[in-house]
Amino acid sequence: MIYFDNSATTVPYDEVIDTFSEVSRSYFANPSSLHPLGKEAERLKEQARRRVGSLLKVKPEELVFTSGGTEGNNLAIKGTAYRLQTRGKHIITTGIEHTSTFEACQQLEKEGFTVTYITPDDTGRITKDQVEQALTEDTILVSMIHVSNELGSVQPVQDTGELLANYPKILFHVDHVQGMTKVPLDFKKAGIDLCTISAHKFHGLKGTGVLYIRSGITLTSQFSGGEQEGGYRGGTENLAGIVAMAKALRLSIEASNSGIDHIKQISSWIEKEVSAIDGVVLNSPRDRAPHILNFSIPNMKPEVVIQALGEKGIFVSTKSACSSKQFTPSRVLLSAGFDEPVAASAIRLSFSFENTMEEAALFTEIFKETVTSMKKVVKF
Amino acid sequence: MIYFDNSATTVPYDEVIDTFSEVSRSYFANPSSLHPLGKEAERLKEQARRRVGSLLKVKPEELVFTSGGTEGNNLAIKGTAYRLQTRGKHIITTGIEHTSTFEACQQLEKEGFTVTYITPDDTGRITKDQVEQALTEDTILVSMIHVSNELGSVQPVQDTGELLANYPKILFHVDHVQGMTKVPLDFKKAGIDLCTISAHKFHGLKGTGVLYIRSGITLTSQFSGGEQEGGYRGGTENLAGIVAMAKALRLSIEASNSGIDHIKQISSWIEKEVSAIDGVVLNSPRDRAPHILNFSIPNMKPEVVIQALGEKGIFVSTKSACSSKQFTPSRVLLSAGFDEPVAASAIRLSFSFENTMEEAALFTEIFKETVTSMKKVVKF
Repeated sequence: MIYFDNSATTVPYDEVIDTFSEVSRSYFANPSSLHPLGKEAERLKEQARRRVGSLLKVKPEELVFTSGGTEGNNLAIKGTAYRLQTRGKHIITTGIEHTSTFEACQQLEKEGFTVTYITPDDTGRITKDQVEQALTEDTILVSMIHVSNELGSVQPVQDTGELLANYPKILFHVDHVQGMTKVPLDFKKAGIDLCTISAHKFHGLKGTGVLYIRSGITLTSQFSGGEQEGGYRGGTENLAGIVAMAKALRLSIEASNSGIDHIKQISSWIEKEVSAIDGVVLNSPRDRAPHILNFSIPNMKPEVVIQALGEKGIFVSTKSACSSKQFTPSRVLLSAGFDEPVAASAIRLSFSFENTMEEAALFTEIFKETVTSMKKVVKF
Repeated sequence: MIYFDNSATTVPYDEVIDTFSEVSRSYFANPSSLHPLGKEAERLKEQARRRVGSLLKVKPEELVFTSGGTEGNNLAIKGTAYRLQTRGKHIITTGIEHTSTFEACQQLEKEGFTVTYITPDDTGRITKDQVEQALTEDTILVSMIHVSNELGSVQPVQDTGELLANYPKILFHVDHVQGMTKVPLDFKKAGIDLCTISAHKFHGLKGTGVLYIRSGITLTSQFSGGEQEGGYRGGTENLAGIVAMAKALRLSIEASNSGIDHIKQISSWIEKEVSAIDGVVLNSPRDRAPHILNFSIPNMKPEVVIQALGEKGIFVSTKSACSSKQFTPSRVLLSAGFDEPVAASAIRLSFSFENTMEEAALFTEIFKETVTSMKKVVKF
């Protein structure tokens, strides 16, 4: 098996699954229960929060444990919009956001908010000048994906944060779901107010994530209920998932020390080999994130390529998994100015620290064979 | 260890934890991915949905997998309110709901909705006549907890459903989180439109739940994002949690065949023994749900009793875990007309099919000793 779909989800580390099982068995109590078992569970939860805080270099109390990236983005964006709507109703985002951000903004537009979707250039990037030009008296939020989940483009988060430091009333949200552990980001140095991460993108478990909310910021909660997670997320905490996430974060940050160079090597090698194939168009920019490589074979249906590779034990994707069942051109690629035949035929490879050069070599070989044999049978 | 806090959370079945681990390892792919691993994950998810549908006697497509009871109640109540607000803005609920329902209604009131909180009698129950009297031209939703998580009172869900069958434009939501597997409820026969359940209350894992949405009903989604779960819950599905929940539901429904009588026996025996203790006031009604027993020792601080029992390896609670850190009289008991010394000193025992008569006997013995020795040192 060659698994190059790590932006859809990663293979959870064995130790992470073991931790989940162990916590589920030994710390099953409700952290809100007042008896000793509940208090032990509560202590473990807060220990996990401190661990995650230390790994992210933020205060533990700045973290809200969520059920994943989509919930985090929804809470950050709608939570800001509803909270600050009396101050202003204008939001700035980009044309290449994840569906959860895009749809949250679309919903807010229906409710009377105004959203500026900044168009990226053909590298999939926007500039801080574009953000500056989009600012109005009414702007309350800038929401930006750090690493594009489709193209791997890296947005100028640091620059934008520096710009927005001059506008202390405007919140800065970063969707760091794809960047976490692959493209380092210091939340504090970058002046980020809100930051979303999701555990299953760094070898943790599905159903767990974190929203960083800088001290001093209050959002409108999306879940009414108990006082758990600072009132942002009532309901019994998924303690085993939270502790497993803390472990996944530690292990994957450790792995990233040598892992980032490793995936750069893998993806650069594949990039070179694949680019040389007749009919292949590279979509990712030169200075993309190391783990995402996007290219197209115009007029060849990507789902057919994916199926053919899948039959040979190679697993890759078209666009975001959250949008993959719509057989339409990629909204993200269209926004970055790619023409429709390119946007409709994109293939995304996404790597993890666990992938190897041997897999890269085998992939390239099989991919070339597959494309050659498909060219014979499909319109090209 | 004697664990009588099963309404806060249950001990997950070993097989359920094993299933979670196995699925996390062997079906790690994103169910939305188009490659064969994604399709296998998708098939497993839909198999779990069919299994849960069959166990609940509803159609698989009527189920939305959520992150738990609080999310389910929020989606049901706010999702109805926002969807139907042009038809009417009146909601009927009871005074003894779980925090998630109560707070959702409180939030909706701030947004211009009107909510009638029906006052229960001293058995913690309301009647369908009270519901009927509360109906207005503007009513869009009746939301009712089936089994009170604090008192164990069972609400007249069937009667209310029959009443509401005459008002097809009013949706009927039932919070069945505490009742599931302990107090049988046929969603279809009771005319329920929306029903919330949570896996960790029936030996499943935290972070997983189901909202039943009857065919033909559309709610306003609370999570903007991908098309997963019929668009109600964008984001990568927690497949391992979903499959583990299906297993927990099957196992606990099987256990309920003999288990319901078993917990009736345990709780009736304890009820008799505890009632005989000088100073103890029984709060649960005679025909309570079998697994919840609530009583007070007026003027004795319940958190002190819980701590003293906890030191002896006995784990019980005061009120709902989601509200247990507020050292205030129980909102639910006050609503049912209990006076403040009673509402402020409630102790809740909650049982599972795993508890034994031996535990009941040992509990009673230790409880009597504890109360006797505490009477000597605390104001009584």
